[in-house]
Amino acid sequence: MDDLFRYIDSHGEALIHDLQRLCRQPSISAQGVGVEECASLLVAQMQAKGIPARKEPVQGGPPLVVAEIPGDGPRTLLIYDHYDVQPADPLDEWTSDPFAAEIRDGCLYARGAQDTKGNIMARLASVEAWLRVRGRLPVGVKFLIEGEEEVGSPHLGETLRERPELARADACIWESGAKDHRDILNIYLGVKGMLYVGLEATGARRDMHSASAAVVPSAAWRLVWALRTLKGPDEQVRIQGFYEGVVEPSPAEMAQLERIAAQRDDEAMRRDLGIPVFIKGLSGVDLVRRLYFEPTCNICGLTAGYQGPGSKTVLPRRANARVDFRLVPNQRSDDILTKLREHLRREAYGDLAIQARGAEPYKTPFDAPIVDVVAETAEEIYGHAPIILPTQAGTGPMDVVCAPFNMPAVGTGVGHSRGNNHGPNENIRLADYIQGIKHIALILERFAG
Amino acid sequence: MDDLFRYIDSHGEALIHDLQRLCRQPSISAQGVGVEECASLLVAQMQAKGIPARKEPVQGGPPLVVAEIPGDGPRTLLIYDHYDVQPADPLDEWTSDPFAAEIRDGCLYARGAQDTKGNIMARLASVEAWLRVRGRLPVGVKFLIEGEEEVGSPHLGETLRERPELARADACIWESGAKDHRDILNIYLGVKGMLYVGLEATGARRDMHSASAAVVPSAAWRLVWALRTLKGPDEQVRIQGFYEGVVEPSPAEMAQLERIAAQRDDEAMRRDLGIPVFIKGLSGVDLVRRLYFEPTCNICGLTAGYQGPGSKTVLPRRANARVDFRLVPNQRSDDILTKLREHLRREAYGDLAIQARGAEPYKTPFDAPIVDVVAETAEEIYGHAPIILPTQAGTGPMDVVCAPFNMPAVGTGVGHSRGNNHGPNENIRLADYIQGIKHIALILERFAG
Repeated sequence: MDDLFRYIDSHGEALIHDLQRLCRQPSISAQGVGVEECASLLVAQMQAKGIPARKEPVQGGPPLVVAEIPGDGPRTLLIYDHYDVQPADPLDEWTSDPFAAEIRDGCLYARGAQDTKGNIMARLASVEAWLRVRGRLPVGVKFLIEGEEEVGSPHLGETLRERPELARADACIWESGAKDHRDILNIYLGVKGMLYVGLEATGARRDMHSASAAVVPSAAWRLVWALRTLKGPDEQVRIQGFYEGVVEPSPAEMAQLERIAAQRDDEAMRRDLGIPVFIKGLSGVDLVRRLYFEPTCNICGLTAGYQGPGSKTVLPRRANARVDFRLVPNQRSDDILTKLREHLRREAYGDLAIQARGAEPYKTPFDAPIVDVVAETAEEIYGHAPIILPTQAGTGPMDVVCAPFNMPAVGTGVGHSRGNNHGPNENIRLADYIQGIKHIALILERFAG
Repeated sequence: MDDLFRYIDSHGEALIHDLQRLCRQPSISAQGVGVEECASLLVAQMQAKGIPARKEPVQGGPPLVVAEIPGDGPRTLLIYDHYDVQPADPLDEWTSDPFAAEIRDGCLYARGAQDTKGNIMARLASVEAWLRVRGRLPVGVKFLIEGEEEVGSPHLGETLRERPELARADACIWESGAKDHRDILNIYLGVKGMLYVGLEATGARRDMHSASAAVVPSAAWRLVWALRTLKGPDEQVRIQGFYEGVVEPSPAEMAQLERIAAQRDDEAMRRDLGIPVFIKGLSGVDLVRRLYFEPTCNICGLTAGYQGPGSKTVLPRRANARVDFRLVPNQRSDDILTKLREHLRREAYGDLAIQARGAEPYKTPFDAPIVDVVAETAEEIYGHAPIILPTQAGTGPMDVVCAPFNMPAVGTGVGHSRGNNHGPNENIRLADYIQGIKHIALILERFAG
């Protein structure tokens, strides 16, 4: 692989320039800013690297950017990424313009640098190195780069149902692995699912003077009482059947959790967060198990009545909560929604209005061949064994992309622990970017078998 | 009294002009707009009517406007009002400028017209009539007109403790009675007290990605759980000792509640509010009893996490509730606050931060002589017996003013059911204003005995 690594090192400046160019093109899906332009730029950049890229139209959304490059061996690797980014605000907290892609102290600062244009370009660069140096790829590679991930990938499922070949492969490299605060690469084998619901309780037709609260039913109290039926201080979700199908960690997974726990410093994290204890006083492997293998029921927001300074005495006409349930295999968001509705009816809160959207959990087994390939190559490139997390904390369309083929997926990437995903001054370190290119290049070789 | 009534009728235009002049002077205590100027104007207007008014300085607040006029008989009547008004916004919902005091279709529109400059001027006009026509008053009259009622009368208690003579009298006419939707005058004999608290639960030091909710304690859940310990769906407040000292209605009060209930149309009110039932399915005298004789625990506001459009998955670092307890005799706000703190400690929510302010309930017995005087004179002036409410729904500094002398107080006034207190297009009907002047003039005669 020295020939490939030499190519990557000697072309570092150009590969960084490619990334700057991509980052300088805004592509904010939530605001519809620059997304189509970014797709066109990306296709042009891919073609310039010898990759036969094209836009694949999406009904009702920005196009996918896709490419398929045949390889020597029989295997095909899918690379999933997204070219859209989060909104850049608050703008006044950025040191440089979020679309200037400025380089300072070895870091490239831009909205999307880490999430996930840095990964896109690292993966394109590794393919470029193979094609320029060896004239061919050892495995087939498919790129599937969507433009709506940051708004929940609303059209991806439908598109892939119609055109499954865009995603079909033997394994998938997912977006956004990163180095932790000790500079150890963390890779992960899945995502949690999510059921996100808005709950609204209503009372009288209009806000009233709070003196009326003696006799007029309160929307705010109804909401509080309904929420309390979902979960109490014992932290157990009280929806009947909620935990049905939740898969226990396998012995291999438990062993992995032990390894993860041994490398964490719970006490330092607790102090940093300023909390007296973690939930249920957990620590060590119990804490890690709960984090990765148990579903949650969290209140993202509460809204009712008067929220300004000083005081106002009002009986609010409505009260809202946003609740997210993080789901684990084998929970399904539509099933949990049905159970939530049944629960609220049974508890006499069937009048609450519910808005919901869901995403499914997905998990790759520890013993899938791609896991070993990513981990072993990471150790060679980074000099340490990576930490293998059974799932990431967050949610993404992994189920939509991978489940139809029962395809294993591993997330790895060029981020670091101060990369500020979704925040101001998002950045990657250029050294991580170059390492990440080499890592993918090596994965391509090893996955060929 | 015909001589007095003739004076009032023949000077109607001037008396309305006096009111317009007072309403045109903004006096928004919450914003510090025009309050001192209004006090000066009011003193000048009173002196022009032959009333020896003066400003009484208040440490840290706008002055009281006070006057003492001796009378023929041994009794003294205190007239309590306030010259400050609520903020006028939302301005774009006013048909005419809130400080133009425009007259349209027999109504005077102005911020403060009903609450309570209309009452101030009606009471001054009745004294003017007595002084101009008879050259003397049948009873001694004291005016106590404060400038901070709309911000909770923060300095009134201290001022009256230092200078109790400003309030000492045999009985008190309180501000703000009004005609109901059938044009029957409602008068009331007390106010509910209030304990208003802000409760804040805190979690980690910063907002976190909601994936962390698996292991990091949630401020929003703590708030919901703590609130649920205060009151459940049975509508009983669960704070130990909360109902201690709550006084049952006397037989006379129960009889009065029966009369009030007979005149209400619960079903029409229920439909108008768009609610399936009143609390606990109550109606009739049970509903009225709960409204006037039972304390409440109401959520005025809830705030946590993300409240904007769309969705955001966050574990909010803090969650707030504003809760008002309406108190009845003989509850005291400081005692209820102590019991609330004890309750939260006992339920393991002693970490919630509490901000509190209180006001005490006050009640005049039905058999106080001033009650008969106000009711009988109202029947003569308005042609109907008034409805006597044991208390108003709201809260005011009646305890501060009247309790030191165990002084009975009755609220009566020139408002009507579409007078829009605190809202846009606040107004009074000019005919009600003239009637109200006559009513007070007759009260002065009859209270003399």
